[in-house]
Amino acid sequence: MIVDVYASYNHVVERNIKDRTILIVDTLRFTSTAITALANGCKQIIPVEEIEEAQRVAHNMRENVCLRAGERNAEKISGFELGNSPLEFLPNVVGGTVIILTTSNGTRALRKVPDSSKCLLAAFLNISAVAHAACSLGKDVAIICAGTDKRFSTDDILTAGGLISRMRSMLGKAVHMELDDLGQAADFMYQKHKGNLHKALSSSRHYRVLVSKGFESDVLYCLQEDVANIVPVYKDGLITI
Amino acid sequence: MIVDVYASYNHVVERNIKDRTILIVDTLRFTSTAITALANGCKQIIPVEEIEEAQRVAHNMRENVCLRAGERNAEKISGFELGNSPLEFLPNVVGGTVIILTTSNGTRALRKVPDSSKCLLAAFLNISAVAHAACSLGKDVAIICAGTDKRFSTDDILTAGGLISRMRSMLGKAVHMELDDLGQAADFMYQKHKGNLHKALSSSRHYRVLVSKGFESDVLYCLQEDVANIVPVYKDGLITI
Repeated sequence: MIVDVYASYNHVVERNIKDRTILIVDTLRFTSTAITALANGCKQIIPVEEIEEAQRVAHNMRENVCLRAGERNAEKISGFELGNSPLEFLPNVVGGTVIILTTSNGTRALRKVPDSSKCLLAAFLNISAVAHAACSLGKDVAIICAGTDKRFSTDDILTAGGLISRMRSMLGKAVHMELDDLGQAADFMYQKHKGNLHKALSSSRHYRVLVSKGFESDVLYCLQEDVANIVPVYKDGLITI
Repeated sequence: MIVDVYASYNHVVERNIKDRTILIVDTLRFTSTAITALANGCKQIIPVEEIEEAQRVAHNMRENVCLRAGERNAEKISGFELGNSPLEFLPNVVGGTVIILTTSNGTRALRKVPDSSKCLLAAFLNISAVAHAACSLGKDVAIICAGTDKRFSTDDILTAGGLISRMRSMLGKAVHMELDDLGQAADFMYQKHKGNLHKALSSSRHYRVLVSKGFESDVLYCLQEDVANIVPVYKDGLITI
């Protein structure tokens, strides 16, 4: 099984990920937020790229309970019901709702997904469940990190390494896993840091931005491994479980 | 001093590297070859992107001794005097010559360099000399790795880490070094692997391609640290020392 890792969605050449299982990673915070919302009873998430699109989709929805959520520069969008902090997406808030979500990096990563691909959303919160699903599908894998400002972001790379580590264990000796160079680096970094992910992240740029804006509790929440045994799927413009 | 690392030249946004010292890294093999050629008496190197351009420049040269060198898919270009193996660039071959050099990734990285920037060529062979020069210049630094096929390549990232490690020692406590996330990862990987760079590289994709084509001796040569105390400079389309 070939596993390639992309540090940012804009590094992806679409012909190279055709016919692969796609794992989208944006641990701080898009995929962590989506996983939390769905685990807490949200019916579906509609990811959109632009704020105006979110407004338009919300306006046209027949659903009774539709929430607009998202961020720009890590902060809640003016007039929206929710930001991008997973801690806001509590069962009594999101249960039974449809959420329209727009974020700076994560929702934009989804546009790289070929129509025919199986696309799963991953973060530390559901990391073993996604690794298991990817192994079960049996196809080559492309792990597409959202990155931060189109660049390598430590939170996503450590998550990619955690996925790879688990997939290797699950596949066992029967299936050889072939990693690209970034996959090998992610694997190595996760192995060395898995006992203290928070320390490994604490000098990263995105972490420091989130902490400076008061979101440290989000980071601590998002670094928990395997608290949600669900695998969100992105298909036909919707995220569901 | 801010130090950012780019895994491939095509990840660079030019406005973000303005007014910085640029360090170009293509350890396997463009920068290692250029360093070797200049250390062995070559007068100057003219890097060009395309084979046809190399032919045209050679045709128009008044110099008596001009050599065409380079590779495509790691192999020597038909009709050229030299390939891209640094072991070919011996004193009796390159002494007093002008070399026109075209490679798949490295020469293309140079087109990202703003005209006003000081741009230095780095590899393990001259790693301390380049780190010292970058510290002396005192500006923020952008380390631009050539990468392989526009992607993260372990040989270049380890070299970036080696540059950062040395720069930190040279700057001492008086100057704070601020690394981006990829710089932190490169630094970490170099610290962990510096005792055995060959082993760290042996599963990387570019290493395996070079070995499969008979270039393992090139890799062993390029992994030597500080055998050349020179700092090639790229300026006005020429590489000189």
